[in-house]
Amino acid sequence: MKSISYLSHLSVDNVIFGYHNKQLKVLLMKLRNNGHWMLPGGFVKEDESILNAAKRVAHERTGLDQLYLNQFKTYGDPQRNKDSRIEKQKVYQKYTFDQKEVNIVDSYFVSIGYYTLTEFSKVEIQLGPVDEDCQWFALDEIPHLLYDHNQLIKDALIALRFHVDHYPIGKKLLEKKFTMPEIQALYETILEKSIDRRNFSKKIMKSGILIKLDEQRNIGAHRAPYLYTFHEEKYAEALQNGIASFF
Amino acid sequence: MKSISYLSHLSVDNVIFGYHNKQLKVLLMKLRNNGHWMLPGGFVKEDESILNAAKRVAHERTGLDQLYLNQFKTYGDPQRNKDSRIEKQKVYQKYTFDQKEVNIVDSYFVSIGYYTLTEFSKVEIQLGPVDEDCQWFALDEIPHLLYDHNQLIKDALIALRFHVDHYPIGKKLLEKKFTMPEIQALYETILEKSIDRRNFSKKIMKSGILIKLDEQRNIGAHRAPYLYTFHEEKYAEALQNGIASFF
Repeated sequence: MKSISYLSHLSVDNVIFGYHNKQLKVLLMKLRNNGHWMLPGGFVKEDESILNAAKRVAHERTGLDQLYLNQFKTYGDPQRNKDSRIEKQKVYQKYTFDQKEVNIVDSYFVSIGYYTLTEFSKVEIQLGPVDEDCQWFALDEIPHLLYDHNQLIKDALIALRFHVDHYPIGKKLLEKKFTMPEIQALYETILEKSIDRRNFSKKIMKSGILIKLDEQRNIGAHRAPYLYTFHEEKYAEALQNGIASFF
Repeated sequence: MKSISYLSHLSVDNVIFGYHNKQLKVLLMKLRNNGHWMLPGGFVKEDESILNAAKRVAHERTGLDQLYLNQFKTYGDPQRNKDSRIEKQKVYQKYTFDQKEVNIVDSYFVSIGYYTLTEFSKVEIQLGPVDEDCQWFALDEIPHLLYDHNQLIKDALIALRFHVDHYPIGKKLLEKKFTMPEIQALYETILEKSIDRRNFSKKIMKSGILIKLDEQRNIGAHRAPYLYTFHEEKYAEALQNGIASFF
């Protein structure tokens, strides 16, 4: 077996979000024979871009391609994770791909944080190469994670909230057609605040990213809300230029 | 001489901004015996955080500490800079600190981009360890730079504009006391658009980050605009929470 070479001192960690039952969830994995939950992550191959490394980490667990990834922060400090390095090294020595990977874990390493948005219903969880377990956790149920991974989730959420407040979001989190209450619930979940119904509808329609369809969903007696979908071009444009500005 | 060890495959690049005569300027350096302008950058020492590496790069050229740095993006692709690697290696072989540094340059490397805000009048330009020259360039006078550094400046500007539109800015770019037209000119320069005078003043006062001083500056007959300064606490708070939000 040809051994794969990885860049030393470098890893990607991926905060994979899914949206389900008005809850934002994060995909966490447990390393084999370690017992601790952590973010799915990996090293960067010598012939691989950092973005593709992060995509690979997400693909291995979700089976999905064409995901929306966003780099949010890079972490690098010799003091970072110092205490837990030895523990991780032990684990990797048991399940190592090659000796080089062990050396990576043994030293100061820089981690590039990405978050990924997935459509929850499409994810079929699979175990990655070093996983004993892999599961969704609601934000308020996230256990103590290995290293500084709890902090990474906090930072990813800040980035996601900032993003959602200034750029369109939802295309990777919602089904293709949705009602206005459904997209509002998504925004409220991510922003962790309730938004006035009429204000929300007015603002999001003014941004131009939604198309109201000539189609209703029957959800009960006298209740048939209209369905909406994203305006592909306007959505792409807003992703580029943003939808909010102070001045 | 004890040789310094650097993390392989990794560098920081720093887009150092200064604001002068209603122009945003960027500090560029020329490598000795190379002839190309580029961003000041450097490698990360084995006992140094990535933030401190970026601070060191800025300190070496500006003489300043206590600068405001912001990480904006990390670049990592095996195809990145492939063509210009050999050229850079030649330069570093002539002026190398140790052999290890040459090996760093020879391979795929990941670069962490920071931008730094400096008070132009306080900067006394100094040459860094490998610099032949170091100078300010106005944004519209930036030459073709080595590697993808022109792209890094574009990305840093996007990040800075995004930042300025949602967070307070100016404390590191303006003198301690300034007039309303002066801070407005700074915003207009960075955002590259003119802002309605009354609208600007209303919005920025409403954000609470400015204090109007009981002090005027005489700039001519019947012209004595009031001076303002930043409200330390409100400024720090707004840096944390932002000043604009869509929903």
